Amino acid sequence: MLRIALAQVNATVGDLDGNAELIVEWTRRAAGGGSRVVVFPEMVLTGYPVEDLALRASFVEASIAALHGVAARLDAEGLGGIAVVAGYLDRRKDLAPRTGLPIGAPQDAAALLYGGRVVVTSAKHHLPNYGVFDEFRYFVPGDTLPVFRLPADGGEEVDIAIAICEDLWQDGGPVAACRRAGAALLVVPNASPYERGKDDVRLDLCVRRAREAGAALAYANMIGGQDELVFDGDSILVAADGALLARGPQFEEALVVADLDLPAADPGRTPADQPVDAGDGTTITIRRVTLAPPPEIPEIVGPEGTGMFWPRLSDPAEVYAALVTGVRDYVAKNRFRSAILALSGGIDSALTATIAADAIGPGNVYVVLMPSRYSSDHSVIDAEDLVKRQGLHAVTIPIAPMVDAFGQELTPAGFPETGLPAENLQARVRGVVLMALSNAAGHLVLTTGNKSELATGYSTLYGDSAGGFGPIKDVPKTLVWELSRWRNAEAERQGATPPIPENSIAKPPSAELAPGQMDTDSLPPYEVLDALLDDYVEKDMGTAELIAAGHDPALVERVVRMVDAAEYKRRQYPPGPKISQKNFGRDRRLPITNRWREPRPS
Amino acid sequence: MLRIALAQVNATVGDLDGNAELIVEWTRRAAGGGSRVVVFPEMVLTGYPVEDLALRASFVEASIAALHGVAARLDAEGLGGIAVVAGYLDRRKDLAPRTGLPIGAPQDAAALLYGGRVVVTSAKHHLPNYGVFDEFRYFVPGDTLPVFRLPADGGEEVDIAIAICEDLWQDGGPVAACRRAGAALLVVPNASPYERGKDDVRLDLCVRRAREAGAALAYANMIGGQDELVFDGDSILVAADGALLARGPQFEEALVVADLDLPAADPGRTPADQPVDAGDGTTITIRRVTLAPPPEIPEIVGPEGTGMFWPRLSDPAEVYAALVTGVRDYVAKNRFRSAILALSGGIDSALTATIAADAIGPGNVYVVLMPSRYSSDHSVIDAEDLVKRQGLHAVTIPIAPMVDAFGQELTPAGFPETGLPAENLQARVRGVVLMALSNAAGHLVLTTGNKSELATGYSTLYGDSAGGFGPIKDVPKTLVWELSRWRNAEAERQGATPPIPENSIAKPPSAELAPGQMDTDSLPPYEVLDALLDDYVEKDMGTAELIAAGHDPALVERVVRMVDAAEYKRRQYPPGPKISQKNFGRDRRLPITNRWREPRPS
Repeated sequence: MLRIALAQVNATVGDLDGNAELIVEWTRRAAGGGSRVVVFPEMVLTGYPVEDLALRASFVEASIAALHGVAARLDAEGLGGIAVVAGYLDRRKDLAPRTGLPIGAPQDAAALLYGGRVVVTSAKHHLPNYGVFDEFRYFVPGDTLPVFRLPADGGEEVDIAIAICEDLWQDGGPVAACRRAGAALLVVPNASPYERGKDDVRLDLCVRRAREAGAALAYANMIGGQDELVFDGDSILVAADGALLARGPQFEEALVVADLDLPAADPGRTPADQPVDAGDGTTITIRRVTLAPPPEIPEIVGPEGTGMFWPRLSDPAEVYAALVTGVRDYVAKNRFRSAILALSGGIDSALTATIAADAIGPGNVYVVLMPSRYSSDHSVIDAEDLVKRQGLHAVTIPIAPMVDAFGQELTPAGFPETGLPAENLQARVRGVVLMALSNAAGHLVLTTGNKSELATGYSTLYGDSAGGFGPIKDVPKTLVWELSRWRNAEAERQGATPPIPENSIAKPPSAELAPGQMDTDSLPPYEVLDALLDDYVEKDMGTAELIAAGHDPALVERVVRMVDAAEYKRRQYPPGPKISQKNFGRDRRLPITNRWREPRPS
Repeated sequence: MLRIALAQVNATVGDLDGNAELIVEWTRRAAGGGSRVVVFPEMVLTGYPVEDLALRASFVEASIAALHGVAARLDAEGLGGIAVVAGYLDRRKDLAPRTGLPIGAPQDAAALLYGGRVVVTSAKHHLPNYGVFDEFRYFVPGDTLPVFRLPADGGEEVDIAIAICEDLWQDGGPVAACRRAGAALLVVPNASPYERGKDDVRLDLCVRRAREAGAALAYANMIGGQDELVFDGDSILVAADGALLARGPQFEEALVVADLDLPAADPGRTPADQPVDAGDGTTITIRRVTLAPPPEIPEIVGPEGTGMFWPRLSDPAEVYAALVTGVRDYVAKNRFRSAILALSGGIDSALTATIAADAIGPGNVYVVLMPSRYSSDHSVIDAEDLVKRQGLHAVTIPIAPMVDAFGQELTPAGFPETGLPAENLQARVRGVVLMALSNAAGHLVLTTGNKSELATGYSTLYGDSAGGFGPIKDVPKTLVWELSRWRNAEAERQGATPPIPENSIAKPPSAELAPGQMDTDSLPPYEVLDALLDDYVEKDMGTAELIAAGHDPALVERVVRMVDAAEYKRRQYPPGPKISQKNFGRDRRLPITNRWREPRPS
């Protein structure tokens, strides 16, 4: 019997000291609960992704030094007898074949810490280089599979292998080598960002790979926000036959603990290094180490935050939790204490304010009401209603005096009093007010644009797009409504006041930058638009495919042009939490200068 | 004797029709000058880089269709007897080994067009995935070396091989296979972006690879701007012994033509496909084709823009040409007709205006003078002086009325009347004015920030950083002065009025956002700062290295923190032409949320 803990913790990029502290702290908890093995996420020591920090020699050296420091500290605190597997940034000491990369190039590595030492290390074999990932830019692949023989309870020994994240997602490699090595357990540190529906894919993957490896599989994932990525935890433990043994919570730090019945290592089999065909055109060397029996492990603290199963979140709950986590961690990890946003009375700013209040507390959320001469009465009423429901700090600053001041100076230079330029001017005056109040008090400015607007360019650069973080930038308008309804229903279920005024949800959307303006003056109904955007943006369909999929040909042409033409705006938009398969950001990288126009099918 | 032409043309990303037209047009010129072989740049048919367009199936199919269209059109216009080598976007029909990428994944390819057909194609073997390049994201590597046997003048035949761009930069691969194939000439389409000093590196490279391949080498590079990249042409032709035979102009379309004395192909050697060890751990298949004798090639037009050698540009002339090219093509390729910028009387906006006037003509450049109450008399005088010297459109819009209007509304909300927030407010009012005038007339807004400011965050988000393109964003302040002096001297040399007022160059720099404010109040002298930034940003030195390199320790700590803290601002800055080894953009990708602080050396 082997008790194992998966520590799904919230690491911070670059904070080596803080992340080291996390490893020690959560190992202590795991030890207190009787676990003999603790698995931490991929690159937990450096945070993930470190991007070009991986190319800075001083940072790589600091990561390696910090790893040795953690090993020594664990031992000094009486935790040297726990087998700790943790991800970190290393460098390859020899020349990697076929990469052209120099000796000393960085690696996405994992280490086994035991008895105060870094016992064995390995590096990720399969490097992801698609979607939000750019790992060929940074890392050389690893070509070893470490297998450590751990003295388990009852005098037997078990063989445990280590792979890293993408090593599960691609065929062959460490999983194949694990079967050849005859390991009883494969532990896998991960930093796998959240996407809607990805949890099911991950579970299927773990089940399949456990069967292929012929070993139990322990999948430990990070939690927390890092710029546009949100890690959702949801760590998984499956038996060799694919049976689910334990599963962590989503978006929360936790220790997922379970007892494994594993086949004992064959004592007659001499642990020796061995190269094997990894089934993917490469050779992997199985590197075996045998651990000494541990010293006595002191009983330290109780196993807080420990469990085997947590309730699963529904789809809207999961998305909402991702957005809240993204905002909370962007604020905290960048050392902000408060956020500010413009509240219009519409649904986008209402949902953004609610997410912010849930993330950092309503007492840290400042809203600015900036009515223009085209703002309707209900807008102001709805905004004030939300402020009262949630207890936010609010200030009202009418923009007409500033808009008029610009008008007076600009009209002689030929500036028109109505039309798009005049509408943009109003939005930009609001942007200046927000930034001014942010500068004066140190608030983070939150933008309130949704994905449908961002896609079509239905926003004003430096106006409503001004800000440091965009909580709903990856949320299509139809999902904005769904999340708002869900959040209100959730409040009612708990006997609390629904945070969002029903009228903000129910009324037809309007930018209110011109008299009687409605979104539908410039855009198709959002149900129609979002379905088309999903096919064009997320599925990368060409015009012919879009029409074949049933979208209106004239609309396809118009919307595709709007999306293409708005690329320059998106480039200057702040980051926001990715929740979809393809966000505007690291996932989708198109040139601004781009004359490609999808041909009309004949 | 074989006459060859390298056509260094200006392709536009996504413009398949326009780029196809370029190929036909320049082949016609080459034929008119008697060339038998014409080499176009890498991905000339699609433009480069196409980024995620490569992942859109409809675009890949359109590229392949366009290639066949060009082959047919060349033949229809009587040019079927010219061997045309051109780059395009293809897809791999079989499964590439060891990539995990699906059948049909895109390739960065080159084709030989002859006799109205696509005779042979191949794909880039070495994919760059560093600096500004992300090719592992898009392409699967090629593993063939096409060698075509061309009937040359005098009845002999010559063997010509094709490689692509990065295939020269890495050891082994197509260059090694070329030697094994015994080809007399290696032609290489390129899309190699400009960097200061890169031209010397490229020449050395061509000389070295020609010797290794045992073949003459024809290096055809693209020209023109594409978002933040500028291609400088500078095509190179070297003999098998490394002797320089011809070299194209920098930043200009041209046909580089030379006559080559090449060893004849061995008629006894049966042209058959043959796999060879490429010396980089892979196998490359040499794919041989023999071309039929050409039909008669009609004399069509004279060889315009043709030559063997052009005068080389000095360092400042080269940098200046890159900036002008970047602005010109961003404007033209995005279908702008004019640009607008804020003119302060300082050197940054003076140089930016001059670059813009040189790029698109002074009649298309609009400047706005926006004095504040802190603007000095000389600022307005210097700005007006520049307007007069260059004949730009100018309008003056004082910002005090708008700043006061904001002040009146914001002061009750606790907004301070002086200090950084008040300074930023002034900059943002200017941003709003510029954007308003741009929206009303369709001008492209140019930002005027330099690299030193961008590095240290010495700028206001949505204020002076507002705009669509940043001509000098990769130019450190000390180089801003050098380029300004050079441009004035160049004018004097040509007997023209120096475009930049001497006082704008000579006076100490100031943002003029507070009374008596000087840049040196917040920043070290620019000579000191730029040297430090060069080591930290471009060379990625850590703190210890920076101090060891002789920089003041206190200044190192301060500047490193300024640079790290300004990452969020740089993310929202518009693109601008890359001229350095590491620009703020595709070259340098750091997280915003980043707690890494370089340790002070003990």
